[in-house]
This record gives sequence, C-alpha cells and structure tokens, in this order.
Amino acid sequence: MSRHFTNLHEWGAEGLARLVDRALALKAKPNAGLPLAGKTVALCFMNPSLRTQVSFEAAAAALGAHPITLFIGQGTYALEWRDGVVMDGLAAEHVREAVPVLSRMCDALALRCFPEGKDWAVDKQDGLLNAFRRHATVPVISLESALGHPCQALADLMTIRERMEPRRKKFLLAWAPHIKASPQAVPSSAVEMAALAGMDVTVLRPEGYDLDVSVMGRVRAACEASGAKFEVTGDIRAGYAGARVVYAKSWGSLERYGQAPDAALREPWRVTASKLALTDDAIFMHCLPVRRGLKVEDSVLDGPSSVVIDQAENRLHTAKAVLLELLATQVPEELCPTSSAR
Amino acid sequence: MSRHFTNLHEWGAEGLARLVDRALALKAKPNAGLPLAGKTVALCFMNPSLRTQVSFEAAAAALGAHPITLFIGQGTYALEWRDGVVMDGLAAEHVREAVPVLSRMCDALALRCFPEGKDWAVDKQDGLLNAFRRHATVPVISLESALGHPCQALADLMTIRERMEPRRKKFLLAWAPHIKASPQAVPSSAVEMAALAGMDVTVLRPEGYDLDVSVMGRVRAACEASGAKFEVTGDIRAGYAGARVVYAKSWGSLERYGQAPDAALREPWRVTASKLALTDDAIFMHCLPVRRGLKVEDSVLDGPSSVVIDQAENRLHTAKAVLLELLATQVPEELCPTSSAR
Amino acid sequence: MSRHFTNLHEWGAEGLARLVDRALALKAKPNAGLPLAGKTVALCFMNPSLRTQVSFEAAAAALGAHPITLFIGQGTYALEWRDGVVMDGLAAEHVREAVPVLSRMCDALALRCFPEGKDWAVDKQDGLLNAFRRHATVPVISLESALGHPCQALADLMTIRERMEPRRKKFLLAWAPHIKASPQAVPSSAVEMAALAGMDVTVLRPEGYDLDVSVMGRVRAACEASGAKFEVTGDIRAGYAGARVVYAKSWGSLERYGQAPDAALREPWRVTASKLALTDDAIFMHCLPVRRGLKVEDSVLDGPSSVVIDQAENRLHTAKAVLLELLATQVPEELCPTSSAR
Repeated sequence: MSRHFTNLHEWGAEGLARLVDRALALKAKPNAGLPLAGKTVALCFMNPSLRTQVSFEAAAAALGAHPITLFIGQGTYALEWRDGVVMDGLAAEHVREAVPVLSRMCDALALRCFPEGKDWAVDKQDGLLNAFRRHATVPVISLESALGHPCQALADLMTIRERMEPRRKKFLLAWAPHIKASPQAVPSSAVEMAALAGMDVTVLRPEGYDLDVSVMGRVRAACEASGAKFEVTGDIRAGYAGARVVYAKSWGSLERYGQAPDAALREPWRVTASKLALTDDAIFMHCLPVRRGLKVEDSVLDGPSSVVIDQAENRLHTAKAVLLELLATQVPEELCPTSSAR
Repeated sequence: MSRHFTNLHEWGAEGLARLVDRALALKAKPNAGLPLAGKTVALCFMNPSLRTQVSFEAAAAALGAHPITLFIGQGTYALEWRDGVVMDGLAAEHVREAVPVLSRMCDALALRCFPEGKDWAVDKQDGLLNAFRRHATVPVISLESALGHPCQALADLMTIRERMEPRRKKFLLAWAPHIKASPQAVPSSAVEMAALAGMDVTVLRPEGYDLDVSVMGRVRAACEASGAKFEVTGDIRAGYAGARVVYAKSWGSLERYGQAPDAALREPWRVTASKLALTDDAIFMHCLPVRRGLKVEDSVLDGPSSVVIDQAENRLHTAKAVLLELLATQVPEELCPTSSAR
Repeated sequence: MSRHFTNLHEWGAEGLARLVDRALALKAKPNAGLPLAGKTVALCFMNPSLRTQVSFEAAAAALGAHPITLFIGQGTYALEWRDGVVMDGLAAEHVREAVPVLSRMCDALALRCFPEGKDWAVDKQDGLLNAFRRHATVPVISLESALGHPCQALADLMTIRERMEPRRKKFLLAWAPHIKASPQAVPSSAVEMAALAGMDVTVLRPEGYDLDVSVMGRVRAACEASGAKFEVTGDIRAGYAGARVVYAKSWGSLERYGQAPDAALREPWRVTASKLALTDDAIFMHCLPVRRGLKVEDSVLDGPSSVVIDQAENRLHTAKAVLLELLATQVPEELCPTSSAR
C-alpha cells in the first residue's frame, strides 16, 4: 500500500514536524548522496507553475531520481475522471487507465489541478486528485488542488520554524485584493498548518470571504486541541495587532463563486507598511507569485520583514523531504535527526 | 551506418523476438546498470502522447541516458521536409538542417508524426519520418507515424508472449467505433506483429474499412510463410469465435479518408462482454488511450480478460530494449539471454 | 559575486579565446567526467529554439548537471520586469521574485528573450535580460536577447578557428532576404566576434539596413585596436570579393522597425553559388534555422563550402565551456589547455 501526501490532516502535527525536521537537515547538507537513484517521478500539471515545477525537478534530480514533467492536455491527452461516462467529447483518456499506467512507469505521481471556478460544491470534491489517489499504485503528491496546497504549507512551516518557536505565536492570515477570484487552496492550507503548529490563528477577511467550513472546522479543532486561540474577523487593526506572522493571500468569495472581488476592497485591504507597523514585528509571508502594488506595497515585499524568497527556497528542501519520505527505501543516517528541533 | 527502428518488416520475426527476449530480461531485472551513461536521446513530438513520452523518458533515464523531449513547432521551429521548396511560409527550419544538427548533439532521434488526414496517398509516404531517416547520422526510432507504431507492437508482442506461445493462436483485430477518423498505424502494426509471431490473423471490420493494401500484403505473406491462417471479415460472430487475443482499435476508412465513422456503427461494433464471451477465453488488448463506453464497455476494460495496463507497462521495458539495441556499445551479460523464451 | 555570460564585450578577445580553447578540448574529449554533478541549470525560453535548448540540455547533462527547461508564460506564469507598476494586467509574477527564487533553486539561469519588434528604443534596453542580471544571485547566460546572441558567436568563432587563423582574414556579414523583420542579435554578435578575433570586417547590406550604432561603435573600436579593416557597404561584388568567411543573415531595418523587408530585395540579395564564387574560397556560415531558397540557394547550403552543421554542433561544445567556466569549482586538468591554439 502506498502513502500519499495530498493534504495536511492525514499527516497531523507530528507527521508535518518530522518532514520539516528532515527538510532542515537537507538544507544544512544539500548533497546527501543519491538515495533515489533509479527512481522516476511524474509531475503532472493542469495549471501553470514556477516554484513547484522547479523545486520538484531540482529536488528529484538532487536525490538521483529522474523527474518527468507533463502538461496534461497539451503534450498529453486530455483526461476524463468521472466514472461511467461515454467518452464522446474532448477527453481521449480516462484516469482509470492513465494513472495505473503512470504507476507502472513511475515511482510517484504528483498532480497540480486548480478548481474550475464555476461551482464550489463540485470543485470541493477534488475529483481529479481523488481519482489519482484511487487508481494509483504508487504515492501521490498534491502540487495544489482545489482544497489545499500541502507542499506550500510545509515550506511555510519550515520558514516559520527557522525564525521562531511557533507555539502560541499569533499567525494572521490577511486577505488581499486581486483582479480575479483566486483559489482557496493556499490560505486554507496556511491556516491549517499554523493551527497544527500550535499557533494562535486569526483569519482577517472582508464580509463574505469566509473559507470553506470543513477547513475551518479542522482549524478550530486543532486550535482547541493545542489550547491556542482561533478567530475570524473583519477588523483590520485588531487583526494586525500583535501578529508575529502576517500571511497575505487573496481568495475569491464562496458566496459569489468565481467572481472577481469588488474593486472597492483594493485600497483598504492592500497590505501596506503602515498595517505591518501594527504588528509585533511580524515577518511577512506570501506563497508567490504576488501581484506587486495590487495585493502588497513594494516596500513591504522588498522590506526587511519579508521572507517570501526564503519561503520559496524552502519549497526545494521540503520537496526533497517529501520525496525521501515517500520513496526512499533507506535514508542516509545524517538525514534522520533523532531529536526534533521543535 | 546507423540502424533504425521505424517499422517491423525491416526487423522481421527474429529481430522482434530478440528485442522481446531482451525486454523480458529487463523487466525481470529493472536496475541493470547504466549502459547508456553519457548518451542523449531526442524525443520529437508532433502530436500528443502519454505512454510514449513517459516510457522513453523513464527508459532512457533508467539506462543512464538523458532524454530531451521536444514539441516540434511549439517550443521549437516548425519543420519543412519537402526538398526544393522556397521557404516563404510558416516553417522556419528544414529537416535537412534540423536532423543533421540533432544527430550531432544526440545519440538517437525518436519521432512521433501522425498523418495529416487529408489525402492517404500523401500521408502514406510518411514524408517526415523518411526525411528523418534520410538525413540522420544516428539511429531513428518511430514513436508512431502514418504507417505504423512499431514500439507499441513490440510491447503487444511481449504482452502476448507473457501469456501464451503465440504460434497458430487466433489473433483478432476488432474494429471499434469512434467519433473521429483514427489513424491506421496501430492496427496495421498490430496485425503485422501477430503475423510475424506466427499467429492466425483475423481482421474484423465493417465494409469500407480495409487497411492499406501494402500492409495487408506483408501480413498475408508472413502468414503464408509460417503456415498460419489469414482472413478479413465483416462477420462479427465468426470473427470473435475461437479468438485467443482480441485487439480492439478504431481506424478511419481509406475510402472516405479523414471522415468520422458512421454513428450507426457504434452500437453493433462496440466491444462488449457478450462479444468477448464468444471467444476461446481471449485476452483483451488495446493500445490506449481508449474512449470508455464509446469503443469498449467498461466491464471489458475493467474485467479479468483485460491486459491493457500490462501492455502499457511493457512499453517501458521494450523501450529499454530498443534503446539498448540501437545505442549500447556493450550490453550487460545478464541482459543477453542465450536461449529465447519463445 | 556571480559573473554572467550575456554579451561579448564584457569577456573581450582574451576571454572568448579562452572559452573556445576549452570548447576545443571538450570536443576532443567529450566524456570529461561529471564536474557539474549536483548542479541545476534553468533554461528560460520566451521564444522558440532548437539548437539552443538541445545544446544546453545535452551539455548540462553531459557534465552531470540537471537542466530544467521552462517556457515562460506557457507552463509558468507570465513575467513582469518593469519596476513600480501595479500588476493588474496579464503578468502574475515579477522578476523581482522569480529571479531570486530561481537563483535559490538553480546554479545558473539562462534566458532567451527576443525583441518585441515595435520600438527599437525600447527593445535595445534589453529590459528582461538586464532585470535577470540585476536580480540573480547566480550566473546568468543569454540564449539570445535583442542585443546579441553570444553563445552563437562563441560557436561561430570556434568554427572559424577550426579552419583558419582568423587574424586579418576577411569576414563578410552578408544581409539576406526574409519574409519578416528578423532580429539584429545574431548579426550584431557575429561582427563583434569577428572584430574581437582580429578579422577584417565587412558588413554588406542594402541602404537602410545598418546595424545599431552602439554595436558598430564597438566593432570599429575593436578593428582599430587590432589594426584590422572595417567597412560597411552596399556593393555586393566588392563585398564578396576576397572574403574568407561569408556569414549570411537577414535582419530588419531599424528605420522601418518591425516591417518586413521589401520583396524587391529578394532576388539581388539572396546568397547564391555565383556570389560565393567571387570570394577567396570562403566558408559559408549561417546560425540556423535558415529558410532555404529564400535567403540562400540550396546549392550553397548543401555545397562543400557550407559549415552550418559544424557551427551548430559547436553550440554543444561551447555550451559546455560556458557552463564549466561559470559553474565548476574545479575543472579537470585535461580541459585546461595551457597554450592557446590561437
């Protein structure tokens, strides 16, 4: 049986902490032999990417594995994933064949599939990713789906842990303006990661921009379990006050699903240096790419609080950690920290 | 002088059998050193692919070679192959330069080029593939052209040989419905492979759907040479009766070239469990991708007779065998079976 | 501090000669160990390529590095490079993030970015390439930008040096017809390379087709420094007379920027065997791709004077030399020629 890395809750606080321990060890010792020599990893993209493709290709290659990047529906056939349909449309291939076939040729399958943006009730099923899990006979890694971006969250946790012991520090997820209705994956995984790390979690968003209830339920439960605070607010000043981490991200409203945010939100919700001044010397985080000037002032991105480049670099080290965890039959001893740095 | 793998007839029954022997040995021992270390293989695609790209990338990497996947006309310049033209149109590069250049930089060139679908008399010239052969100074591998798909046929032969001694067993090529006029490459190579393996060959198709006469001529001659039966029929019940292999595939009519098959053929010609029940416990084969529900019932694809995933897996092992045969200066001894398993 | 390879003038005659020495040594000994094992090189393409992608992928792999080819704006996000803009348009990512991030994950960044073709005053700023240089923390390699194609020029110099001692030999850059306004990068780098190699340089072009003044200024200065001749002429017979190297290339007029050349130029300016007969047994060079029949007669390209395939092959060896120079911490001794072949 294979074990997948497609969400955070199946791994839990301990599982994620162990992966970050491994990633920190790999960062300290980048050339750690070729424990994945002879392995092949398929990276399947339905949507664009920069950090994700480069970090996983570089991580796989550094460990000795061969990465194969596939742009699904461009170089390959378009995929159907619904069961029982008569395939007389655009899709020439079904995941019921494609995924078992890839499983025979590759040692892990990674998939990026953004939501369609028409109906949240459909998108939140994460149909394609779950079909990959169902039909794969090797580990499946999510490179972002409708429901989450666990690889990003892992790099985020690593970045926080490099700067502070996260327990009971205030983590602020700050909604940011955009010209489009952005997905909920990154903000959902960010708050879930923070909650699992024992941080006090505040979600700061305009009315009508709540995250999905099932994500919020898990965040609330994780905060209760660790004795941390959890709040959702529209009060910008109160939200920023006392934060140690400001995690900026835009996302679309589930109530007006697929519609661009109201332009009137741009000015008040843009992340600025003056808002950051309200915090307790918070670090500024963003998953990238970021639309400068629109979501965040240049002075914040280029200022001393910004850790966005480190966050991105940590995608590389955490990608190595995930690949090693899922694929290595034997891990070099120096990459097995016995005492966690947590 | 280089030797190419672009069709079956140049290799003959013995050559194909030897390649399958090698592929079986590689399947039994997947990590067979890096006999192609330092080599580079260019994979040139004019058309989409999944199994082909992944199997050749994974095969090359597993043997130590570096695969370079090129989507011709997208990331690269569009190619002209006709001699003597004034190039004042879309194509910016001629194969007379591109192929010698790739030959200097790479150790083998593989090409996928589907037919245009307008004029069979033009398409059957296989102009681009033959221009590659003419101008290459390194081995050329066909990844499917208008006339054939020899790599698929090799994996098909391996899949059959894993289950039965092919000689004099009944091989049924069964025409299947489609919404488009599909190419003749796969069915042509499938029957030629079966004939070279000494099987009794039946082509079951609607009136007007005969395969190209030159392919059929070679199949007829091969069957005569081995003392096997060869028939072309439109009688569905008689076709399925006694078959040990049912190879389903759709293809377009050469008489109404490029036009989609009549929708009235869908119901009677779809491959169903009840048709399969007429056979002598046949295995069900298909090259993939397959349009579920349209060409074949789900119950057949998902049933115990289906070997389609094994067929696809064998693309990997046969790709290794082809690369080794064409490129290796020295092949590890354990991959040189002295007695054929046939 | 990193050192870049994005133009010729920063390297100068000695620097280029040393790189060619290294490339000649690598050509003589293609398997020179894996001095770049564990390194990763990002190849970023805004425009199509064949030789460039394949030569750099093959070169990187041959030296042990892992190449990652990115088609910017297709598989990745579209990039903004202007500072201070509010990013509410198509571009989702700014080079201020993308380039530092790639620098953290990769050991070198290579970029191809053709000019837009609307306004030479804008294009000649080479905005994107310079933004890469500004924000990268690892070496940047130009794979052709508006202002030059230094990797091509390096291969060109190698090809000339394999055939003659270049000093004071006549190098003719011969304008050739085209259906489009082609970029100035290749011809600019070609004449700058020839001048730095001490050749007598003649630019033969129709009225209105002068190359950019700053390039011409550097060429004139280099010729003066080495005591070589430099002339720009529209006299076809005089231009070809006595040439030892004919370097054909089309480029668009800077005066009628972006507009296709006048069709009346096609017949008189096409490179023909009879023009080549005016030279002093010149070799014929072209960077490829070349539009046969339009720019050059087939008999020239296929004739004994043509060295275009060798030129292209030398892209591979010079790519290795550039990667080694910029990335290797230790270079194998046999690749360090002590006496230059110049």
